[in-house]
Amino acid sequence: MSSQATPTLRLLGIGASPGVAVGHAFILDRKRIRTPKLRLAEAEVEPERMRMKTAIDLSDRQLAELKEQITRTEGSDHALILEAHRLMLHDPMLVDEVNRLIIEDRINAEWAVRRVARKIKHLFDNIPDEYFRERRSDVDYVADRIIRNLMGQVVDEEVEVPAEAIVVAHDLSPADAALMARSGRVGGFVTDLGGQTSHTAIVARARETPAVVGAGRASEQISPGDLVAMDGIRGVVLVNPSDEQLAVFREEQRRYQESERLALATKDLPAVSTDGFQIRLNGNIEFLEEIPSLLAHGAEGIGLYRTEFMFLDRKTAPTEEEHYRAYRQVLEAMGGRPVTIRTLDLGGDKVPGKTKHEKEPNPAMGLRAIRYCLSNRELFRTQLRALLRASVHGNLRLMFPLICGVSELREARSELEACRTELGRAGVPVGKRFPVGIMVETPSAATIADRLAQEADFFSVGTNDLIQYSLAIDRQNREVAYLYRPLHLSVLRQLRGIIDAGRAANIPVSMCGEMAGDPLYTLVLLALGFDELSMTSGQIPVVKRFLRRVSRVDAMELLQNAMELTTAEEIERYVRTEMDRRFSETMEPGAPGVGNAEPADHEPSEHGASPSGRNTA
Amino acid sequence: MSSQATPTLRLLGIGASPGVAVGHAFILDRKRIRTPKLRLAEAEVEPERMRMKTAIDLSDRQLAELKEQITRTEGSDHALILEAHRLMLHDPMLVDEVNRLIIEDRINAEWAVRRVARKIKHLFDNIPDEYFRERRSDVDYVADRIIRNLMGQVVDEEVEVPAEAIVVAHDLSPADAALMARSGRVGGFVTDLGGQTSHTAIVARARETPAVVGAGRASEQISPGDLVAMDGIRGVVLVNPSDEQLAVFREEQRRYQESERLALATKDLPAVSTDGFQIRLNGNIEFLEEIPSLLAHGAEGIGLYRTEFMFLDRKTAPTEEEHYRAYRQVLEAMGGRPVTIRTLDLGGDKVPGKTKHEKEPNPAMGLRAIRYCLSNRELFRTQLRALLRASVHGNLRLMFPLICGVSELREARSELEACRTELGRAGVPVGKRFPVGIMVETPSAATIADRLAQEADFFSVGTNDLIQYSLAIDRQNREVAYLYRPLHLSVLRQLRGIIDAGRAANIPVSMCGEMAGDPLYTLVLLALGFDELSMTSGQIPVVKRFLRRVSRVDAMELLQNAMELTTAEEIERYVRTEMDRRFSETMEPGAPGVGNAEPADHEPSEHGASPSGRNTA
Repeated sequence: MSSQATPTLRLLGIGASPGVAVGHAFILDRKRIRTPKLRLAEAEVEPERMRMKTAIDLSDRQLAELKEQITRTEGSDHALILEAHRLMLHDPMLVDEVNRLIIEDRINAEWAVRRVARKIKHLFDNIPDEYFRERRSDVDYVADRIIRNLMGQVVDEEVEVPAEAIVVAHDLSPADAALMARSGRVGGFVTDLGGQTSHTAIVARARETPAVVGAGRASEQISPGDLVAMDGIRGVVLVNPSDEQLAVFREEQRRYQESERLALATKDLPAVSTDGFQIRLNGNIEFLEEIPSLLAHGAEGIGLYRTEFMFLDRKTAPTEEEHYRAYRQVLEAMGGRPVTIRTLDLGGDKVPGKTKHEKEPNPAMGLRAIRYCLSNRELFRTQLRALLRASVHGNLRLMFPLICGVSELREARSELEACRTELGRAGVPVGKRFPVGIMVETPSAATIADRLAQEADFFSVGTNDLIQYSLAIDRQNREVAYLYRPLHLSVLRQLRGIIDAGRAANIPVSMCGEMAGDPLYTLVLLALGFDELSMTSGQIPVVKRFLRRVSRVDAMELLQNAMELTTAEEIERYVRTEMDRRFSETMEPGAPGVGNAEPADHEPSEHGASPSGRNTA
Repeated sequence: MSSQATPTLRLLGIGASPGVAVGHAFILDRKRIRTPKLRLAEAEVEPERMRMKTAIDLSDRQLAELKEQITRTEGSDHALILEAHRLMLHDPMLVDEVNRLIIEDRINAEWAVRRVARKIKHLFDNIPDEYFRERRSDVDYVADRIIRNLMGQVVDEEVEVPAEAIVVAHDLSPADAALMARSGRVGGFVTDLGGQTSHTAIVARARETPAVVGAGRASEQISPGDLVAMDGIRGVVLVNPSDEQLAVFREEQRRYQESERLALATKDLPAVSTDGFQIRLNGNIEFLEEIPSLLAHGAEGIGLYRTEFMFLDRKTAPTEEEHYRAYRQVLEAMGGRPVTIRTLDLGGDKVPGKTKHEKEPNPAMGLRAIRYCLSNRELFRTQLRALLRASVHGNLRLMFPLICGVSELREARSELEACRTELGRAGVPVGKRFPVGIMVETPSAATIADRLAQEADFFSVGTNDLIQYSLAIDRQNREVAYLYRPLHLSVLRQLRGIIDAGRAANIPVSMCGEMAGDPLYTLVLLALGFDELSMTSGQIPVVKRFLRRVSRVDAMELLQNAMELTTAEEIERYVRTEMDRRFSETMEPGAPGVGNAEPADHEPSEHGASPSGRNTA
């Protein structure tokens, strides 16, 4: 099947949805749209504005239809995105500005839409949060739709992707997902753009289809029908592989599927060490759609439900009713399992209706998360009231982000109590009290964890931020990302301190940062004594498998030795070696999920052979 | 003397140089320069370029003359700034771009200079470091000079300021300082622009003249000859005060001078508690010029000499020779007293010759300080070689900033040793080994201080950054600055941990952050057991006076009680009350330096009555 004559092309991207796939390329080319640029005569201005209005109306109807379609096939969160796109169509920032350009600059509607879109996207620049940077694509999706409608192009052409084909695209919009709905099972996705939180990544993970995003110019470099072998863990794409490479990939695919099968088989087994220390394994989610996959992978609850999504792509903050519906759906879908919902963890620059023109020079250390909520009480109360109301529908645990000290926790709790009283007086059912905990993600909170434990019902350690602030490292910054080290002695000591504080106060301690789902750290976390770990669904079976094969006593010895070492390099090397020693023989080779996040420069033959296969520099 | 008829105007700015002054306003108006805007005919282009060249040459000669003058009267660092201005005149970014605009856009030279200046200043935007943001003014000074020369205006008019007058200006340039050199003693400075590190602030502190900077539109609101009463501690300026207000200020002035006199009288006394715990009080400096004032105030050494200044306003990084001369001068001027020199503490965006176009979204957590040096070895080695060579001229202590772990310290030390060997081989004298210490300013370093203490010869705690990272607060960000609290329990615990680690390893522990110079914290720092504190010269006598009146046993009791409290608010309230109780009766009222940094909303009558007078919200 491989074309020996064609040289093999190797592309590296970001592994965004795990799995290995081999198939023929199906190029979904929605990208190249040339915006015509014309100057208008005065008499053409009014007709141009009418043309614009017609295109907006048409776009609106199309999105409404797609929304219908997608709700049936994909679930309501993607429908929400399409609804957001519809709102954008009517956003005065878009419409009025386009009309202004038509009238004042006498340019045609297509050109005006493109210029305004560029301007709006510019507002998203310099937002450090990857999730929000990705949202610039939404502006493009909407602008492209209007421009195509202006040009009379066919817009939402239904796409029939051949079964097991690898869909290659510049980017995938939520609409594309809807339009592929009737296709057979897609083999995999490869896109030029996107990161871990792009639509493609979310769609792919929800469908449990392998995906590589951010793969450069893949959609130009791959031709229709090319044979593509892809690895959604490491982010590797081989185009027209040799027979030998292909055999390796097929073997990897078989192993992955086998180990996935084995992993899923353990879904109902507890995550318990050989000497009986049990850890609850939860899932981190952002969308309702992710719940089936979570449950299929054996999640015992949700350790982190991010609510930032609610505030996305909107002109106004969500209403209490919108909050309530979203939380109720998740609580009900989890059927009594614990659902940990984190209150808004954004900075003011990203909250709709609060245009903030003063750019913060260091937004990561700015007015965000609980600080933002405490200085925007009405917005905070809206979310709290919705959470109180939703709490009657399931097993809610509420969590406040970025707590530094006891004052903030007290203030936040007292807002919650005020809302409870208010709702109670109005006769709204709010259910019984639920646990209220905090994210431990600042060095300050780690240092005074004993005091915080007196007033919090649980801790959830956010390692991503804790490590960032402790080491003064912005891990989004490529120049210093190499200094971001979860096994830094200072991190391990802080984790130990947090657990000790939780133990002493008899409250559960969880971890929901990325460290929790990486099997390289599993023994360390077992040794530290976490009660719960929360991760993405695909990571759960892997971590569980590791946990079930070791004793905590053994893990504690490993940790003790590690903490006697000094540099992060020494500790990493030691942990890696010890993991290899313990697992290289007993583990199924090709264990998935090890090194999930990073594109490594490995040939697939080195694939996940051991827990240390990861390229954690 | 006060004009009863005129209503009193009250302005609030930033207290930038301590002291109280009353005098008549002398308006130094160099601000309002209207840039003429003309379109050129084709034939005018070449003459315009010649006109530009003439203006540059003239500006160059003027700056050379001023430099001569200022070297005689003010010292060499300000001369260095003028030299930097000269370099800027010949910067292709300026000259070529102006010529391009003249040729391509056919605009006159004045307009082109203004546009290019705006563009260059824009490069300084979003730099979080106040010191560097201030450097935008330098671009304006240079642009204004060229434009005035283009317009044939008189540029460097010598200014005769009447003795004791209050100089009011939009901003003061280094040139202005030179031009006022022959004036009698100026009473005080008030400027619209500027912060703690603006030229005005530096000049004023070096001259020990009170200054209020950043006072809004002072230069427009104050008329020549207006009676002005100003307080350079609190940043308060009263224009045409009532007789009553004037009497209060005069009394404050008398008290300040008296307390300053008393303070200076203690200059040779040790900073020792009543029960014999002695702390070495050092100075923080940036310029050679500050040394006489340091010594006059009784500094026992330099706890922090910042070397960022060397890299300022330049096209190329400083040569080894330039580094060497600067360090040698400081070491010699301190005559054998310890001089702690910190290696470059900047990010790559601010180092000359390293234009970095990718803006870091969170520069405070980016590639800066030791990280930057370790990834730009040649630049680092140049500084290290100069330090090694300079070390033969005095009592050098070398300090690395932003250390997170032992690896960085080892790497930095091994660079130092490599440079020592290299110089030794070349036969260059490098003196004997000097102490090599680290700034403890990341939560990571605080957490593993015991390990770092094994390999560092001393610690110097940088509280500004340590508090920032611990609390995830950018204190430059007005929205969250209120959360920046030196008495946060997490900060106190980290400080205690650092001291314990230093004690155990028998290395001295110093503090050079702003916390060290604020008397509100003096007892806390005495109790914690710091060996040294380093601060600006004016703060030394005040801190010493407090230290000499209490026992460490008493301070330790205070600290123990404080650390049993929980919230930062409770701890602050307690410490404030206890400080009042101890000092309100025994202390000289009007103690200077308390609350040095912030403009408070107090009437001067509340002036420094007690250590808690400070508005540390």
